[in-house]
Parts: sequence; C-alpha cells; structure tokens
Amino acid sequence: MINKDNLTQHISQQFNAELEEVRSHLLAMGGLVEKQVNDAVTALIEADSGLAQQVREIDDQINQMERNIDEECIRILARRQPAASDLRLIISISKSVIDLERIGDESTKIAKRAILLSEEGEAPKGYVEIRHIADQVRKMVQDALDAFARFDADLALAVAQHDKTVDREYKTALRELVTYMMEDPRSISRVLNVIWALRSLERIGDHARNIAELVIYLVRGTDVRHIGLTRMREEVEGKSRD
Amino acid sequence: MINKDNLTQHISQQFNAELEEVRSHLLAMGGLVEKQVNDAVTALIEADSGLAQQVREIDDQINQMERNIDEECIRILARRQPAASDLRLIISISKSVIDLERIGDESTKIAKRAILLSEEGEAPKGYVEIRHIADQVRKMVQDALDAFARFDADLALAVAQHDKTVDREYKTALRELVTYMMEDPRSISRVLNVIWALRSLERIGDHARNIAELVIYLVRGTDVRHIGLTRMREEVEGKSRD
Repeated sequence: MINKDNLTQHISQQFNAELEEVRSHLLAMGGLVEKQVNDAVTALIEADSGLAQQVREIDDQINQMERNIDEECIRILARRQPAASDLRLIISISKSVIDLERIGDESTKIAKRAILLSEEGEAPKGYVEIRHIADQVRKMVQDALDAFARFDADLALAVAQHDKTVDREYKTALRELVTYMMEDPRSISRVLNVIWALRSLERIGDHARNIAELVIYLVRGTDVRHIGLTRMREEVEGKSRD
Repeated sequence: MINKDNLTQHISQQFNAELEEVRSHLLAMGGLVEKQVNDAVTALIEADSGLAQQVREIDDQINQMERNIDEECIRILARRQPAASDLRLIISISKSVIDLERIGDESTKIAKRAILLSEEGEAPKGYVEIRHIADQVRKMVQDALDAFARFDADLALAVAQHDKTVDREYKTALRELVTYMMEDPRSISRVLNVIWALRSLERIGDHARNIAELVIYLVRGTDVRHIGLTRMREEVEGKSRD
C-alpha cells in the first residue's frame, strides 16, 4: 500500500525532473484557475465589468496550459512508461487538467453574466445566495488543489463531503430565486443571469470534487467515483488504518 | 502520418486482443449512452415518467462501464506500454469515456425534468424547441461515435461544425422561453424545467464535440481543442491531402 510518506519519498527520490515539472505545472494552472474563480465572483458581486473582461481574456492562457500539460503527460507515458504510483500520478494529472479547464470555462461564464448584469445596473436579488455559495466553492477548489499538492486523501474526502452541502444549498438558493421571478416578472431576465452564475458555481464545485476523487485515487489507488460518501470515507479512513 | 487505412491495418495486425476489446467496450458504452439520450428525450416529449425512471436506473450501468474501461486502459498502459498511435488510441478512449459518462449524467437530468413535467401535467410551451435541438444533438452523438468507430476525421469535423449551429439555436430557443415566462409568470417553474432540459441537451452537444475532437487527435495526431473551426478544418483537410 502506498501511504503519503512513501509517495512523497518515491517522488523525491525516483521521479525524474519531468515528472516533478508536470506536477508543478498542474499546480500552477490550478493557482491561475483559482484566481479566475475569485475574480469572476468579485466581478459579479461588485458589478466590475473590467475585471470580468480580464477573466474572459485569461481563459486562453488556461486552455494553453491544458494543452501543454497534456503534451507533457503523453510524452512521459510514451518515453518513460511509468508504472504503479508514477502511472497513477500521470493519470490523475491528465484528468485533473480537464476539470481545471472546465472550472476556467465556468469562470468565464460567470464573468459573462457579470458583464450582462453590470450593463443592466441595479443589483438584482440573489447576491446573498451567490456570495455564500461562492465562498464555499472557492474553498472547495482551494482544498482540492492543496490536497493534490500534499497527497492528502483526508482533505480530498472533506472536499467531496463539502460538495454535498453545496448541492443542497444550491437547490435552496434556486428555489429562492424562482420565487423572486414569480413575485416580480420584470426581473426575470436579470434573475436568470444570477441563476446561470449560480449554476456555474455549482458546476465548479462538481469539478473540485472530481479533482478530489482523483487525489484519493492517486494516494489510495482506489477509484472512488460513484460509490457514495459513506463508502468513500471507508476507503479513505479504512486504508489509513492499515 | 497516420491515415485511416494505416491505422485500421495497424490495429488489426498488431494491436492485441486487449486493445480491440477496450475499443469495443467504449463503443458499447457509446451505444448505451446514445439510447439513454434518445429515451430521455422521448420521456420528456411524451411525458412518459416510466421511461424517465428507467433512464435514471440505467445510469449506474454507465458509471460501471466507465470504471471498467478506465481500469482496462490503465492496465494496458502499465503492462503493454503502448506508443504512437496505440498510445493515442488509449488516451482517446480514456478521455472519451469521461464525456460519455457526462452525456449519461445529462440524460438522467433530462429524465428528472421529464418526471417533474409529467407530474405537472399540461405540456408547457417550448417542446418544439426541445424536439428540434434534441434531433440535432442526437445526431451529433451518433456521428461522434461513428467517427470513433471508423476513424473518420471528416465526420468528426462535421460534428464540431454542427455544435456551432446547435449553440446558436440553443440561444434562440432560450430567448423564446424567457419570453414565455414573461408573458405568463404562472408558467415560470414549468418553463424553467424545459430550460434545464434544453441546457442539458446543449451540454450533450458539447460532449459530442469533445469526443469528435478526440477522434481528430487519434486519427491526425493533432490537438484541435480551442483552435477554432477554421483551423480545425485546415488540420483535418490539409493533412488528408498530404
């Protein structure tokens, strides 16, 4: 069984520079994506269309990072033929970039809504809900990336658990927003923009959870997708007691 | 350069049974996912909650297929250390399953909306839009899978081009639906269900496009994500003339 220390040791002693480099590129991409989420939310809440525009422009950079990391992973697979935990690292990285790129995409969608809303002036209802869920989703992204950086399966498990809460609060917020629309039909198009932004936040939470599941796969060697939180916890905690 | 014939030949002559098997598993998963999309749309349009329930139940099977195909890919990477087009095949398969699984997810979301709408009785406006976009998205999924089965980069390109049309029609349909809500605020919650279903269809189109891009990568060896349709066509057509 591979525990955190073995994995870290293994990496520092045997992985070559290429492997360390691709991991650091993933974390750099993660850092930029995290910033995109933050900026998109700020742009939305503060009706800052300049910042929103900036988010949309930086998206290209994220797409380019995805391509580069993908190429690095393929090169390593072809030339170094990694096995065991090395292979799991490459697989986790090449899947995580997909989620990071999609988080970037959702951030630009939020930025787009921010621009539309700032044009309409007058902040619509629903910002309290946005702010609250945004704080949680941002933490999920941050924690998922920290879990990846530290090979921390427990923190990854916490991210997956957090997603459940966010999904519940998202549904409540959605109901609230539908009520606003019914009470004031003139607000429909404005509130819909808030709903789309909220939806993007919920999707970002899902992607953070995917990354967290990849961290568990990387550290524990178990595929924990679709197995439910209870069994996921057993996988993470059970094996730590081995 | 790898053309279609070489690739097919290469596979038939040198790929071992494992490689052929994982490819056929992907196509089988694709077939089931395609059926899920069809059934979800039928359930929605015909307000058939029994069929919708069936779609939701089959989703577990798709998740299981994703896990199995993933395991097969990892086993092949670890044991057979594929290179060149063999490696591209494994990478394309392991990424396509992610999109197929998400198409399955979106189908269950549509099924969920079908159940909610059938409970409310009275078909809301917006079904014409749903039906039209659904037909196109179903064709995209089918074509993307055919392109994968036949290593057909031209068909894959057509899928990507089709996605552009679907996105445009999706936006038009959305505007139409927002108008319905404004005209009859009592319909808001019903129309929102139609909007969510439409959104899922649009997402399914995106995933079909992702699969098509993977087919182009598989056949041409070029990463055509984020490069725009014009450059994508140049990559596909230019290289076929080599």
